[in-house]
Amino acid sequence: MLHFDCDYMEGAHPLILERLVRTNMEQTPGYGLDPYCESARERIRQACGCTDAAVHFLVGGTQTNATVIDGILRPWEGVLAAQTGHINVHEAGAIEAGGHKVITLPQDDGKVSPDDVDHYITTFYADPTYPHMTAPGMLYISYPTEYGTLYTLSELEALSGVCRRHGIPLYIDGARLGYGLAADTADVTLADIARLSDVFYIGGTKVGALFGEAVVVTNPRLLTNFFPVIKQHGALLAKGRLLGIQFDTLFTDGLYLRISRHAVDMAMKLRDGLLRKGYRFFTNSPTNQQLLFLPRSRRAKLDGRATFDTWFPYDDDTDIVRFATSWATREADVDALLELL
Amino acid sequence: MLHFDCDYMEGAHPLILERLVRTNMEQTPGYGLDPYCESARERIRQACGCTDAAVHFLVGGTQTNATVIDGILRPWEGVLAAQTGHINVHEAGAIEAGGHKVITLPQDDGKVSPDDVDHYITTFYADPTYPHMTAPGMLYISYPTEYGTLYTLSELEALSGVCRRHGIPLYIDGARLGYGLAADTADVTLADIARLSDVFYIGGTKVGALFGEAVVVTNPRLLTNFFPVIKQHGALLAKGRLLGIQFDTLFTDGLYLRISRHAVDMAMKLRDGLLRKGYRFFTNSPTNQQLLFLPRSRRAKLDGRATFDTWFPYDDDTDIVRFATSWATREADVDALLELL
Amino acid sequence: MLHFDCDYMEGAHPLILERLVRTNMEQTPGYGLDPYCESARERIRQACGCTDAAVHFLVGGTQTNATVIDGILRPWEGVLAAQTGHINVHEAGAIEAGGHKVITLPQDDGKVSPDDVDHYITTFYADPTYPHMTAPGMLYISYPTEYGTLYTLSELEALSGVCRRHGIPLYIDGARLGYGLAADTADVTLADIARLSDVFYIGGTKVGALFGEAVVVTNPRLLTNFFPVIKQHGALLAKGRLLGIQFDTLFTDGLYLRISRHAVDMAMKLRDGLLRKGYRFFTNSPTNQQLLFLPRSRRAKLDGRATFDTWFPYDDDTDIVRFATSWATREADVDALLELL
Amino acid sequence: MLHFDCDYMEGAHPLILERLVRTNMEQTPGYGLDPYCESARERIRQACGCTDAAVHFLVGGTQTNATVIDGILRPWEGVLAAQTGHINVHEAGAIEAGGHKVITLPQDDGKVSPDDVDHYITTFYADPTYPHMTAPGMLYISYPTEYGTLYTLSELEALSGVCRRHGIPLYIDGARLGYGLAADTADVTLADIARLSDVFYIGGTKVGALFGEAVVVTNPRLLTNFFPVIKQHGALLAKGRLLGIQFDTLFTDGLYLRISRHAVDMAMKLRDGLLRKGYRFFTNSPTNQQLLFLPRSRRAKLDGRATFDTWFPYDDDTDIVRFATSWATREADVDALLELL
Repeated sequence: MLHFDCDYMEGAHPLILERLVRTNMEQTPGYGLDPYCESARERIRQACGCTDAAVHFLVGGTQTNATVIDGILRPWEGVLAAQTGHINVHEAGAIEAGGHKVITLPQDDGKVSPDDVDHYITTFYADPTYPHMTAPGMLYISYPTEYGTLYTLSELEALSGVCRRHGIPLYIDGARLGYGLAADTADVTLADIARLSDVFYIGGTKVGALFGEAVVVTNPRLLTNFFPVIKQHGALLAKGRLLGIQFDTLFTDGLYLRISRHAVDMAMKLRDGLLRKGYRFFTNSPTNQQLLFLPRSRRAKLDGRATFDTWFPYDDDTDIVRFATSWATREADVDALLELL
Repeated sequence: MLHFDCDYMEGAHPLILERLVRTNMEQTPGYGLDPYCESARERIRQACGCTDAAVHFLVGGTQTNATVIDGILRPWEGVLAAQTGHINVHEAGAIEAGGHKVITLPQDDGKVSPDDVDHYITTFYADPTYPHMTAPGMLYISYPTEYGTLYTLSELEALSGVCRRHGIPLYIDGARLGYGLAADTADVTLADIARLSDVFYIGGTKVGALFGEAVVVTNPRLLTNFFPVIKQHGALLAKGRLLGIQFDTLFTDGLYLRISRHAVDMAMKLRDGLLRKGYRFFTNSPTNQQLLFLPRSRRAKLDGRATFDTWFPYDDDTDIVRFATSWATREADVDALLELL
Repeated sequence: MLHFDCDYMEGAHPLILERLVRTNMEQTPGYGLDPYCESARERIRQACGCTDAAVHFLVGGTQTNATVIDGILRPWEGVLAAQTGHINVHEAGAIEAGGHKVITLPQDDGKVSPDDVDHYITTFYADPTYPHMTAPGMLYISYPTEYGTLYTLSELEALSGVCRRHGIPLYIDGARLGYGLAADTADVTLADIARLSDVFYIGGTKVGALFGEAVVVTNPRLLTNFFPVIKQHGALLAKGRLLGIQFDTLFTDGLYLRISRHAVDMAMKLRDGLLRKGYRFFTNSPTNQQLLFLPRSRRAKLDGRATFDTWFPYDDDTDIVRFATSWATREADVDALLELL
Repeated sequence: MLHFDCDYMEGAHPLILERLVRTNMEQTPGYGLDPYCESARERIRQACGCTDAAVHFLVGGTQTNATVIDGILRPWEGVLAAQTGHINVHEAGAIEAGGHKVITLPQDDGKVSPDDVDHYITTFYADPTYPHMTAPGMLYISYPTEYGTLYTLSELEALSGVCRRHGIPLYIDGARLGYGLAADTADVTLADIARLSDVFYIGGTKVGALFGEAVVVTNPRLLTNFFPVIKQHGALLAKGRLLGIQFDTLFTDGLYLRISRHAVDMAMKLRDGLLRKGYRFFTNSPTNQQLLFLPRSRRAKLDGRATFDTWFPYDDDTDIVRFATSWATREADVDALLELL
């Protein structure tokens, strides 16, 4: 059976596991106050070209989004996001449970446009009744988006400019950050992400770790007392070093980008193969998530042989489905899948 | 100066004020446990043709929406509403502050369609990832809508049917209920509202009272322990009899509908006059709110002479504006406004 | 039947009602943007000797506490309060519903001591695990307390000093402020309250108004964007002028203190009479609430003749009960009650 | 350097780590829908003698408490707990952030008494103002307590009886459950815990796992839709099998209790040694946490040689400190510590 359901079907990259085994019986203080976390923080700061950034390790993506957003917003503020943003769709209302509205913007291939953001904020404050409405307190985007697409550097610069002009922070959800940075068409670096956002996170769960997300706060006026917020959200791992060890490993010798690149290579191989076979794609994704039109007739051939994610029925004959590769995808499996299709 | 800004610019209907004066030095227990509240509850039940309904008195509209919705939903549920619904736009995020997502549906003239509601819920549960998403836990509509429009009886029956089929309550925001029931084209009665919804409120603030909204719970399984929810939301008036006296008066001798009818008459007079003068309307409203296209050139003539509400700039030459009448609007003022325009 | 249950059994002081009647058909903008609110704000600032204070009008006490506290605290902070504080006991968890812990301190006659506050905060930050605990973000006290007692000026100065030394705001719940300021033994003025606190409220509901509480923010760095917080809490009265008119009247020609003084006179008459008859008091209250030991045998004599509030059974023979006077208490009723007892 | 700071200083039991390594490259669905979770659930049900229990895996203790409590309580309810309960002291207000009050009860050695619980609830409902107060909606206790002490079987039966009589669920925080069950004086079994509570959790983080807590719901009417609550709290681990594998291993061949027993043996050896040396203990704990009076003079001898947890200064010469053993404590370290002391 071939599995292309998602990018978190395996455990961790072997180098991470080896190191967890090697350090297993060491004794360290909890809650991220250990030397592994300290080393990982330093490596991440280096990789971001941002020596003053604060780095915090949390366990999962929904948790990270809820904690960061709750830590930033004041009670009367909401978070701007694409209609398709993960926080708006797939987090079971975690942002609202924290008391905040997700203010949705139109999306194109999963992306919001700088003009739409600017227009929303400008129109908002032009309306004299605005104190009766939820103030736009920050912008959330994902890189790559939920559709596998990427903002260009100039788009990111424009979004960052809009946010700074209006005085609201830009937060980038990097659950699959590596798969974006490693894409062929990406013209954005980790340093760009750090420079243009106020806070972002580097996804570990989907990119080689057992679990874990590294929140990088580059704006020094933001989240200045983040520890109790993390604790209050149940997001403080007791054995924090497990996160330190994983991120320290991922950011040693470029492992994070290297394994991300593998996932992209596998996705491109799959994409090229499917294009040659005449498949149409729902989005033009240069990253590890490939969304395509799958006729029901073809679908039947995969029954019992390959698993993947059905996004929604497109019409009576066709579904939109997603195949996801990861750091762990085997080339032989891609070949086998192409053969089946 | 003529004032058509909104429907809450005056105090209360004189009969209410007289009765408040007359009863002023009486001593009654607080929190709605007095005989005036009891009498008002009974009159409202009679008017609704619903002898078993529970009736609760709160102070204002946003407060009522937040309290009712918070009392009904479980943590993982959200409330379905039109994109233009008051709870989605003009309540400063009060619903989200209570932990719940407002799940928006498309609107047409401020109304949601039974098909859209049905489709949303059906699609929601057809998606295998639905436990990761906010469950639609109730439907919120307003009658009249924020655009002054009305659901027909058959539309309400269809919405009610969809909700009952899917097992979620239908909640009707009646901030301006009287102005809807009294409209010429309305084919809906208070008894229909009571019969087709699970809970609704009868707006007092905008229809003759100093303040106050009467929540009517017709579904006996809903809000069975509502008192502490009201208290927790800061919505429990200490001198609760002030609400009882007001609603008892409004529901004596048909006062509520009679004064509502006056507002509608004044709105129709204004509308007819403006149509004759060639104005175009933004919505076809049979109620006290009239939304129209106002060219900037004409607007200038009102400066310093009449006040009203600007909704948004339509294009470079025109604004969408709202003129609202109320139970207190003087016919002479409508005439004067028509002359100015 | 004599009623001494509480201090909100009647409507409003006649001067207030007259003015509501006189202004009833005037048209004003809503939400507190009218001239009556502006005038009331100015009179309150004058009375407080605090020309720069921001003044906001809300409807009820629980609502005011929840809104002010939620507006001040950050998510990781709680509010220090006496074990017997209203926010800890009788607000149905409204503070916690806003996400914040009420951190309780020991009380003596309903009061917290400066030493206990200082000790709590000092010990808190001396504990290295404090980031895992709820930070004390403000201090709540009531003046008079829930037991009818009063802080002395030197106690208030000490509490204020402790708060300022530790950098947390002091908030005073003045639901019955007038009854405290008007007490014989009170050595505190309204100007002292304004000078020593960062924010407080002047209770109207219990002191002559139909409803209404005036929040006075004297610390200019606090609650700088309070309007949407009020709206979000459902605490923004549409016809805001009703609050303005009431407080403007209460703060004209010293009405607020004058009617408060009447309540205190009536309470002292009751107290002196009961002391002469040999009754023992549970607290030594110089204000309008009198808590005493009432033997069950005596209690029977009041059945069907007088109502009052039973706080709790003290032992098998005795209850602790409360008699409350108000601005509206008639001397003849006090005489009659003394006769009955 | 000797480390007795806490019971989560090492990684995981070697058998767990081996199995994580062995299964690392297997592909499984996420979110706990994998065969390892299923197997672990079944083993836990067996161990609890409770074939119908629902079992959910979460990541950490604070998270588990916040999620379970939020899933059970209605908005107007709070949770009863000892003043010293973890949820009241060391969770940064996570319960209140979810909207619920922690209602504190007196404690003796960290335990609440059945009489106090009964008295609180009885008194609560005897007070006619109770709808203005936070209703006691469930009881939280910890086994072992935060002080290392244990409820006896008869105490647990009495607590369970009180809860059932009053119709509120009993929730047991078992962060250190193994260390309680394995104690010499424990007369309670896992089956007793399951039988007497409505929901409890089996702590993994402190008892041999890298992380993880297993929530066991024995009351079939409770938490019937728990999945979205877990998701909303950010407590749903993407690679859920990591939790399944760990608990499956811990509940194979009695590993959980065996390694718990080791921690208790080490604690008893330490305790006996210290008693012989004349140390006094702050609580009489039969579990892995030992709280004692440590004179400052002796403390100096440990500087740079041993780490432990200081709870609070007892007087000018003495601190209350905690030494914690765990499944990983080496006997040689206990010997060395005894020598130092």
